Amino acid sequence: MSNVYGQDIRVSIFGESHGRGIGVVIDGLEPGLLIDMEELRRQMKRRAPGQKLGTTRTEADEVEILSGIRENRTCGTPICGVIYNQNTRSQDYERTKRLLRPSHADYTGHVKYQGFEDYRGGGHFSGRITAPLVFAGALCRQALEQRGVTIGSHITKLYNVTEPRFTRETLTKETLCRLGQQTVPVLAEEHADTIALRIEAARMELNSLGGIVETAILGLPAGLGDPFFDSMESRLAHILFSVPAVKGVSFGIGADFADMTGAEANDPYTVEDGQIRTVTNHNGGILGGITNGMPLTFETVIKPTPSISRPQQSVDLETKQIETLTIVGRHDPCIVPRAIPVLEAAAAIAIYDAWKGAKI
Amino acid sequence: MSNVYGQDIRVSIFGESHGRGIGVVIDGLEPGLLIDMEELRRQMKRRAPGQKLGTTRTEADEVEILSGIRENRTCGTPICGVIYNQNTRSQDYERTKRLLRPSHADYTGHVKYQGFEDYRGGGHFSGRITAPLVFAGALCRQALEQRGVTIGSHITKLYNVTEPRFTRETLTKETLCRLGQQTVPVLAEEHADTIALRIEAARMELNSLGGIVETAILGLPAGLGDPFFDSMESRLAHILFSVPAVKGVSFGIGADFADMTGAEANDPYTVEDGQIRTVTNHNGGILGGITNGMPLTFETVIKPTPSISRPQQSVDLETKQIETLTIVGRHDPCIVPRAIPVLEAAAAIAIYDAWKGAKI
Amino acid sequence: MSNVYGQDIRVSIFGESHGRGIGVVIDGLEPGLLIDMEELRRQMKRRAPGQKLGTTRTEADEVEILSGIRENRTCGTPICGVIYNQNTRSQDYERTKRLLRPSHADYTGHVKYQGFEDYRGGGHFSGRITAPLVFAGALCRQALEQRGVTIGSHITKLYNVTEPRFTRETLTKETLCRLGQQTVPVLAEEHADTIALRIEAARMELNSLGGIVETAILGLPAGLGDPFFDSMESRLAHILFSVPAVKGVSFGIGADFADMTGAEANDPYTVEDGQIRTVTNHNGGILGGITNGMPLTFETVIKPTPSISRPQQSVDLETKQIETLTIVGRHDPCIVPRAIPVLEAAAAIAIYDAWKGAKI
Amino acid sequence: MSNVYGQDIRVSIFGESHGRGIGVVIDGLEPGLLIDMEELRRQMKRRAPGQKLGTTRTEADEVEILSGIRENRTCGTPICGVIYNQNTRSQDYERTKRLLRPSHADYTGHVKYQGFEDYRGGGHFSGRITAPLVFAGALCRQALEQRGVTIGSHITKLYNVTEPRFTRETLTKETLCRLGQQTVPVLAEEHADTIALRIEAARMELNSLGGIVETAILGLPAGLGDPFFDSMESRLAHILFSVPAVKGVSFGIGADFADMTGAEANDPYTVEDGQIRTVTNHNGGILGGITNGMPLTFETVIKPTPSISRPQQSVDLETKQIETLTIVGRHDPCIVPRAIPVLEAAAAIAIYDAWKGAKI
Repeated sequence: MSNVYGQDIRVSIFGESHGRGIGVVIDGLEPGLLIDMEELRRQMKRRAPGQKLGTTRTEADEVEILSGIRENRTCGTPICGVIYNQNTRSQDYERTKRLLRPSHADYTGHVKYQGFEDYRGGGHFSGRITAPLVFAGALCRQALEQRGVTIGSHITKLYNVTEPRFTRETLTKETLCRLGQQTVPVLAEEHADTIALRIEAARMELNSLGGIVETAILGLPAGLGDPFFDSMESRLAHILFSVPAVKGVSFGIGADFADMTGAEANDPYTVEDGQIRTVTNHNGGILGGITNGMPLTFETVIKPTPSISRPQQSVDLETKQIETLTIVGRHDPCIVPRAIPVLEAAAAIAIYDAWKGAKI
Repeated sequence: MSNVYGQDIRVSIFGESHGRGIGVVIDGLEPGLLIDMEELRRQMKRRAPGQKLGTTRTEADEVEILSGIRENRTCGTPICGVIYNQNTRSQDYERTKRLLRPSHADYTGHVKYQGFEDYRGGGHFSGRITAPLVFAGALCRQALEQRGVTIGSHITKLYNVTEPRFTRETLTKETLCRLGQQTVPVLAEEHADTIALRIEAARMELNSLGGIVETAILGLPAGLGDPFFDSMESRLAHILFSVPAVKGVSFGIGADFADMTGAEANDPYTVEDGQIRTVTNHNGGILGGITNGMPLTFETVIKPTPSISRPQQSVDLETKQIETLTIVGRHDPCIVPRAIPVLEAAAAIAIYDAWKGAKI
Repeated sequence: MSNVYGQDIRVSIFGESHGRGIGVVIDGLEPGLLIDMEELRRQMKRRAPGQKLGTTRTEADEVEILSGIRENRTCGTPICGVIYNQNTRSQDYERTKRLLRPSHADYTGHVKYQGFEDYRGGGHFSGRITAPLVFAGALCRQALEQRGVTIGSHITKLYNVTEPRFTRETLTKETLCRLGQQTVPVLAEEHADTIALRIEAARMELNSLGGIVETAILGLPAGLGDPFFDSMESRLAHILFSVPAVKGVSFGIGADFADMTGAEANDPYTVEDGQIRTVTNHNGGILGGITNGMPLTFETVIKPTPSISRPQQSVDLETKQIETLTIVGRHDPCIVPRAIPVLEAAAAIAIYDAWKGAKI
Repeated sequence: MSNVYGQDIRVSIFGESHGRGIGVVIDGLEPGLLIDMEELRRQMKRRAPGQKLGTTRTEADEVEILSGIRENRTCGTPICGVIYNQNTRSQDYERTKRLLRPSHADYTGHVKYQGFEDYRGGGHFSGRITAPLVFAGALCRQALEQRGVTIGSHITKLYNVTEPRFTRETLTKETLCRLGQQTVPVLAEEHADTIALRIEAARMELNSLGGIVETAILGLPAGLGDPFFDSMESRLAHILFSVPAVKGVSFGIGADFADMTGAEANDPYTVEDGQIRTVTNHNGGILGGITNGMPLTFETVIKPTPSISRPQQSVDLETKQIETLTIVGRHDPCIVPRAIPVLEAAAAIAIYDAWKGAKI
């Protein structure tokens, strides 16, 4: 069963890249939530194609809200948002439909759907399907912001550009908000230019790049998540790994735990303003699967866009002959910047769901 | 909602470390499955305490099967397996119950369960609760093995010992079976001794170590998993992140994707024996959230055991005063070796569930 | 959690009577299913308002399919169908919005959604929301018909008109198909006229009527459904009791079981054409929660339409004063005939879901 | 997927009549709930065999609590309760195992589980499996009672003995409590004797009887349940139809709605003590799938016990020959009295689940 996420809210996604429309149904949002439509559009725009560094395909990505919101307030009933498809060039795909695009879902989708899948533009596997996810996430995010939560991200690795994870000093509400305004969100300003150059170079070389994004969530209470089997890590990883191109998720210092001893890795307890806190936050705000009130931090690995316009070795699905494929069409040389609002939206959905379930 | 995992099977876990018993209910296993009880016990024993490198606490961990299996065959109805607790030294914990153990779930469990949690020995958060998970996983594993699936793991990192991921050459059914027999499963024999020495040293220093484990699953068909929201990665990560101490999960080459271009990272297609295959397997056997018939590989990051017997800074839950805590009791200096059968069991559950759902 | 039904398929419903649109997302339908669009429209039309005996409100109820169907075949991905609202007279409801309509959901919806519900025309509680249910059910129904299943219903009680349940003689595929063509489906032709007169009389008297419908499903295999907690009865009753105005569901001879002894009620076994069958079918084709291959039969009680234009005692939600309410607007004096395709659609969804889960 | 019920709590059931044990896991109960163990045992005893009117098979039905309750308080973690099987006479069933018992699940279970089912004593289909359901329900019931809820039932029909449904006068907390103490709970005292005689006569005649039970729940707030697809009726009917022998469920006046006009059936609003109430309660406390604060009432139809010791026409599963079967063993001539605590337990589970989900 694929298309429903959530326990105390339910997010159902649908649509194919080149079909009539794509969208999402969200049930379980609290009634009476005031929605800032301008901010909602801003989140959609962060992900939308046609950005400076992305694909040249432009789409309005305007969401039509069919139900569940009236006079900018949630009714408490299911909200359906639809984005109608336009400006698609299906013929781009017709030419190559029998040749499997390496590292795409063409082959696996073909096996799963027995040849009846809508293969045009990636169909249901298209990155475009993340647009309704951002819409659903933007609603959850506004609900969370009204409870004092802030979400933000920066790129910690993109080819040979790296920057350190958030620290106690760099991780502030102000920084997160500033990062949310940047096309290439990084803590060190100079990295933005280097990364932009790298991406532009990849485009010129008909190549692509991946990267790692660190996301932080401030303002969460302790007590969200469950031990077996719905730890906060499980809930977040589940939805993050649904986002196309995500190949790794880790919490806190992640793989660095393997280089440390327990004496170094453990987060000692302290008390600040009468609140129990930890001195360090190597665990990224989650212990035993449950939030501890420290900033929740996680890193997501995004693989290089598989669509590159270089000749690649492929196989013809029908003849089963090895062939050379050269993908034509408009593609992002690096989806990392546009993936960030998607990851944040996914996180907002997971957090809202856990919070509602926690009844705190 | 915490304690149920699965869509087409349902695994419900229960129990506290120092309560009457711990166990699991598994529903949805096919009827008529012949269970090799000896092999089942062997899997349980791989995880059991009292191993050469682990804690000195010994428990029989004998599972009593209450239902669903008759004359060594599954009936098709829910299977309940129970392990009764014995040999617990609850008083070890009474002494320190008000002092929060750093990087454990004491604090978060206390917040979530409002002080009514069974704090003894970690209660429901204890690593001991993974024993029923291994039982459930061992059942799924046998079902998978009867369909030609093999699961195995090796340690790719443990402090400063590292070894490369599986390659086309090292990843064979024979290797996986051999690894399953080793207390410290590694590809390079010399690593086993170095790791054993490292762990022993950590024990002497009242310290602990974490590590990274790579797991491979051979023999899967293409077509398992779903795009949104139940990708094979989502399903696996969900259950893996429920295992205590897991802080990162990645597929294929994981974080290395961030160092590569698309031209390097993409897995070109080829044909072998009339079957569509990929030349490389950077994606770890999953594309678009669906298995592609290549070996499924993933890495799991395990943090150092939080229980160390050195003095640590803590806080008294009642007085909210900073105190020094010295944990007494028997603890593993490194749970990585014992975690491996747990990770494999978790993977077997996720795979069986997806396979049943795929109706292939 | 309200808006998702199903285990192996997932049906998510959304919409308010007077919002932008209503619709449904269905995930999990097999790929490659050929959809007869004409037949789909016919099922929608059976439920649509503007029928001879129903409300005078007319709506095209044309479904726009946004995803999941391409060239009349299911892709295997989620199908979204939307019906845009038109021809609504919201002002009819503005006049009386503070006065609770007896036996409607005005009060309970108001409590649940804390005053933020879209109260116009019943909002999300409107019988109109059953239109997308018929769409989803019509898809499942076509899939079932391609496996040899036939569904049909007749009215067994409507005020003082009663007719006996299906018998071995009357329950044929031909009869069910014929009933599906009738506006007032009854076995005895003369009942159709009497019922039509009764309904017309109720309209004249500004009153309304309920009734009982018996539905039969032919061609099911033995083995569908589960003991605890997803018996075929549980699955069917769950979705039937979501249909507005349904207040009772029973299987086989239902309440008549209370008048019989075991010796009379038990269905003896026999063999027909080498197949195990029962001589009688008092249990309505379900034993132990699982289909036995006999015709599945159930009865559904539908209460009289609460919307009547007579003065009724009500309460003003704000002043909490008792007031007299006279409902204005176009309403069915009896929704039983239009409810029948909804009940059949609901049943088709439940059966398809159980069948897929049974992997027969 | 059969064995899990609930959205905000999860009840997982397991066990076969003649296996090692039967039981239940309940997750999601609030932490800190004080459990009255004596009252819990009393509820178990109401259902237990060996009652005056029931089977002569006696079992202690003592529940061993393995987890989740410590010092009589819920921990908030999953509660597992087990009843070990004793006093089973499996050989009673060996004799007839190839002959299908009419109106039992022998045949459907055999088809579903492909011959691997534990057929002894009904296996997983045995009425005995309702014992853990009563345990789980008794826990929920105590939680509800602490919030002011009372549950009680009476027999409204048993062969030719009938008594009217609860009225405003008869439906009081005191009456419900009194009914809970009676072996044959009826409003009119003389009915108890008549029913007892009827049942005893059925036993003598090697026959059995069914009946109808009306259950009432007092003290519920308005606002529990959801429109599509988890109406309070759907939630209750779902779990009630999992109870063996239940063949009908209706709410309020049920089938009588078909005899009334809307003017008669509608429940007019009024105000009592500043609270919005309805004058009549034909809808049984549920409107639009949501509780309205009036008493919730429903009726459940229970078919006559299929196990009768008269010769019955059956079929041999292997030879497919028609044979005569005479069931040997100890069986209830009428399970209605013992079913009542099961129905109440099921209702308590459904209500607790909806209440938790409603976050009122």
